[in-house]
Amino acid sequence: MVESVTTFDGWYTLHDFRTINWEKWQRATEDERNEALIEFHNLLSEWQIVEGNQEGRHALYSIIGQKADLMIMVLRPTMKDLNKLESQFNKSALAHYTQPVNSYVSIIEKSSYTKRETDPYKDPAMLAKLYPTIPKTQYICFYPMSKLRGEINNWFTLPKEERGRMMFEHIATSKPYTEDIKRIITGSIGFDDYEWGVSLFCDDPLKFKKLIYDTRFDEVSAKYAIFGTFYIGNYLLKEEINTYFEI
Amino acid sequence: MVESVTTFDGWYTLHDFRTINWEKWQRATEDERNEALIEFHNLLSEWQIVEGNQEGRHALYSIIGQKADLMIMVLRPTMKDLNKLESQFNKSALAHYTQPVNSYVSIIEKSSYTKRETDPYKDPAMLAKLYPTIPKTQYICFYPMSKLRGEINNWFTLPKEERGRMMFEHIATSKPYTEDIKRIITGSIGFDDYEWGVSLFCDDPLKFKKLIYDTRFDEVSAKYAIFGTFYIGNYLLKEEINTYFEI
Amino acid sequence: MVESVTTFDGWYTLHDFRTINWEKWQRATEDERNEALIEFHNLLSEWQIVEGNQEGRHALYSIIGQKADLMIMVLRPTMKDLNKLESQFNKSALAHYTQPVNSYVSIIEKSSYTKRETDPYKDPAMLAKLYPTIPKTQYICFYPMSKLRGEINNWFTLPKEERGRMMFEHIATSKPYTEDIKRIITGSIGFDDYEWGVSLFCDDPLKFKKLIYDTRFDEVSAKYAIFGTFYIGNYLLKEEINTYFEI
Amino acid sequence: MVESVTTFDGWYTLHDFRTINWEKWQRATEDERNEALIEFHNLLSEWQIVEGNQEGRHALYSIIGQKADLMIMVLRPTMKDLNKLESQFNKSALAHYTQPVNSYVSIIEKSSYTKRETDPYKDPAMLAKLYPTIPKTQYICFYPMSKLRGEINNWFTLPKEERGRMMFEHIATSKPYTEDIKRIITGSIGFDDYEWGVSLFCDDPLKFKKLIYDTRFDEVSAKYAIFGTFYIGNYLLKEEINTYFEI
Amino acid sequence: MVESVTTFDGWYTLHDFRTINWEKWQRATEDERNEALIEFHNLLSEWQIVEGNQEGRHALYSIIGQKADLMIMVLRPTMKDLNKLESQFNKSALAHYTQPVNSYVSIIEKSSYTKRETDPYKDPAMLAKLYPTIPKTQYICFYPMSKLRGEINNWFTLPKEERGRMMFEHIATSKPYTEDIKRIITGSIGFDDYEWGVSLFCDDPLKFKKLIYDTRFDEVSAKYAIFGTFYIGNYLLKEEINTYFEI
Repeated sequence: MVESVTTFDGWYTLHDFRTINWEKWQRATEDERNEALIEFHNLLSEWQIVEGNQEGRHALYSIIGQKADLMIMVLRPTMKDLNKLESQFNKSALAHYTQPVNSYVSIIEKSSYTKRETDPYKDPAMLAKLYPTIPKTQYICFYPMSKLRGEINNWFTLPKEERGRMMFEHIATSKPYTEDIKRIITGSIGFDDYEWGVSLFCDDPLKFKKLIYDTRFDEVSAKYAIFGTFYIGNYLLKEEINTYFEI
Repeated sequence: MVESVTTFDGWYTLHDFRTINWEKWQRATEDERNEALIEFHNLLSEWQIVEGNQEGRHALYSIIGQKADLMIMVLRPTMKDLNKLESQFNKSALAHYTQPVNSYVSIIEKSSYTKRETDPYKDPAMLAKLYPTIPKTQYICFYPMSKLRGEINNWFTLPKEERGRMMFEHIATSKPYTEDIKRIITGSIGFDDYEWGVSLFCDDPLKFKKLIYDTRFDEVSAKYAIFGTFYIGNYLLKEEINTYFEI
Repeated sequence: MVESVTTFDGWYTLHDFRTINWEKWQRATEDERNEALIEFHNLLSEWQIVEGNQEGRHALYSIIGQKADLMIMVLRPTMKDLNKLESQFNKSALAHYTQPVNSYVSIIEKSSYTKRETDPYKDPAMLAKLYPTIPKTQYICFYPMSKLRGEINNWFTLPKEERGRMMFEHIATSKPYTEDIKRIITGSIGFDDYEWGVSLFCDDPLKFKKLIYDTRFDEVSAKYAIFGTFYIGNYLLKEEINTYFEI
Repeated sequence: MVESVTTFDGWYTLHDFRTINWEKWQRATEDERNEALIEFHNLLSEWQIVEGNQEGRHALYSIIGQKADLMIMVLRPTMKDLNKLESQFNKSALAHYTQPVNSYVSIIEKSSYTKRETDPYKDPAMLAKLYPTIPKTQYICFYPMSKLRGEINNWFTLPKEERGRMMFEHIATSKPYTEDIKRIITGSIGFDDYEWGVSLFCDDPLKFKKLIYDTRFDEVSAKYAIFGTFYIGNYLLKEEINTYFEI
Repeated sequence: MVESVTTFDGWYTLHDFRTINWEKWQRATEDERNEALIEFHNLLSEWQIVEGNQEGRHALYSIIGQKADLMIMVLRPTMKDLNKLESQFNKSALAHYTQPVNSYVSIIEKSSYTKRETDPYKDPAMLAKLYPTIPKTQYICFYPMSKLRGEINNWFTLPKEERGRMMFEHIATSKPYTEDIKRIITGSIGFDDYEWGVSLFCDDPLKFKKLIYDTRFDEVSAKYAIFGTFYIGNYLLKEEINTYFEI
């Protein structure tokens, strides 16, 4: 066995993608629409209380293009919490005007190629990464990814040092973007079909492209990255929801 | 022909994944919902009798994310039994509020790279593995997998000794998790589209990720494993079903 | 051009897979259900006459798992016959309670790596293979397959002798199963998306797994076989159809 | 740049595949069905006039298996003509009982590896190939294909001479079938997802299999051909349409 | 890290593909159809004002074949603008007679392998490329593409000079087509599932085929191009919309 890397894990994460059946929504009566929105706002208020108690986070995004209309991103302490939240939303009236199209189940993860001397779970900087707030930037970019296990190039048979070296090169390339682009990296081995989920947050979506383009020339991306589907979304403020659903 | 490995086989297994049409369910009358649940509980009682007679097992899971809502895992002595059970469920009222989305047909299997001196079918330890109870842990992780038959790396052209060596390395990596994670390995060659099904059981889902991450660096996984889709589910007690379906 | 292999061809074959809309079926009136079943039995009687005239064969299977509910396997002298039969079934009332999910179009085929001195179409043993009865075993296993044309391993650029040698090794591995497992091999180049269809017949489905597992270590399978989806079904006697559709 | 090959182009081509909603068709009133068929026959009469004016061709096929029920093959001088014809059919009543399932957009193409001394567009033999009649054989076999651009075997980096040599070998293998199997080769680079479309016409469908099997051992097919889905259809005479749609 | 290439970016771009539910459209009342078309023309007038203000572009195309019926191509200064436009269309009555089938999100991009001495964003020629008008040619050809990151051939590990050399060869091959075929290249790394989108514009669709065929022999295409699905569409003038939707 090649030496694996130590990971630290925080909140469980669900990215839930849905399309909206606009015709059905517009054909509903005004009362039905109002009740559905009020119920949804009540749900959001409940989630807000959870957030106030530092027991999770949530954010809504309007996805650009036809892959989805709405994306709900949720962080929670347990898988069971995610499951309950899903069930709660599925039983709400608004859900009946939506169609699930994709989802991603993962957990916030920090990998460490270097040895730590202190308990990372007592390190405030680490805790802030494991139990983060969702950056309130205008845009999100989400994509799942795996590392290649090819017949010639195989990430998982490389010595830990070589993997570390490539990851550091990768971090160096990302450096100029650190200020502008915040990220939440989640691990999904055993939970979903790729190995990691990447959620990037920025006010300027062009910077997502520039970052991912630059890093694509890094050895780790060029030779070892397998990318899933890319989603780009607009942050939807609680106050914008009614406008979003206005017919 | 490269030498194959001796396998011992137990109960046939069906993993049956379904989404729930929540809108249809909520639009049903209270009577319709009650009758559907009563009928389903009767079905479960029948299956419970089978279980009492040591003629099979079953468990229900609530799947996290949108790949499915409900997963029914069933063990039975014959394929015909699985088929009958499917038919029975399909004809039940509750099934009409669900949509099948995936299934996996396999049989509990123990492989043996070493020679056995006694009849394994008379060995109580072996029998307990071939006709197991489903561990009543809070979480299940299920995924199908095959071994690579690549143009360079081909599991099935390796000498038996080399395969055995890699499997033992794999078992060694899994060792620290044996206590916490129970597993049921099923074979599906000729029955379904991957070669094996892996069902892991644990109270802490994070341990699934840690086990599968660690073992991904084993030569057998890194170079030869092809993974299908991963499902993670919450064990659903009989007593929780009505709450689960509460509108 | 590498030398191809002589093939002899018999009846055209259709494997037709359908799911059943159980809710729609149960919501139909008793009269509608009875009429649909009577019409279907009349169809089967017509097909039985064809069978009596040695002009074709047919069998019904209940598929295990969610890939399909029902599979109809039909052998006929011409493609036009298959097309007519499909059309006839599509226009029947029972078809309206089903949804086509897959099909496979092929022709019974015997390959010969060795030279024959007599006319194979006058050889009763060959004729029995080209125009067989469908074995009335309890289970069927069906899968389509192709031979790899990889960049390194390419079946179709190998000399005929080497292909012959591998096929003989393959036959030797299958030998212990010949008694228990009957097979109908069909060719589908130009007719469907894989090169061959394999239909195995046995009373014990575990033997399918054992045979396919053992042969997977043969060079021809390990290095050159590409398998499509696997179906496993229960033979459905004419007398069992009404029970199958009983609500 | 490796030297490309000169191609000559004729009529634009559409292969349009549809399933029929038999239940909806049977539930329509006799008047609705009659009107739909009369309108469709009027459409065919219009297309027949186009055909009489040598401004295009069309043919209908009943596809065997569940990939489609009906295939309409149309040849026209411009893409706009194909688009108009599609629109015309989509707006017809009969179309409402069908569901589009696939289509292929291409243009009749003759490649030339050798230099021509005379203007091919004045050569009657060439014109007959670029603006052909659709052979009125009982069966059609259609499949799209591309040439491999693999990491080892790459058709498009081979010298023109080598490609020519392989194509001539391919033509030689096809020779014994020239009499019986007519073909229309269409190019689809830039128009659809494969590089070519192959439409074969023969009264005996077994010959399709034999031809494609034999040629699969040609270097050009064995090493460089990527095949899409295969369709096999029965020619549907204008006079047979009403029988085809008879309930 | 291998050196990446400087890119300049202009308008964000959405290609939005939809099928039309012709039956539903024909079953609507004349009033419903008229109102839907009037509302759509009003939308187009709004978009025309945006175009007049040099704040974006739009064009409509009728797609040939069954991949889609209608394609709306839109250029806008921000992702938010694209999102709003989508939402506006989704809420229109005409949208209810359509079904989204695909979309592509990207941004107009000019790559530069050579150093520029002046500010490209002040260069009128560059600005005309970044904020172009959509050529009003009769046909469009759209396809997304990526560069191969294979185990042997990997675009992103090549030195910049080698990539530049191949791109210049590619440009040379395209040269004879420059006059006739206009192009808008868009970058989609981080926005959608391929790396680039290619929109070609020409009055003669055959030229698309000839250009793409010729360039397929360029090293950059032959060895490194991965093509997505190809769409070919007919430009739809504002004046032709009512005819297009005429029943």
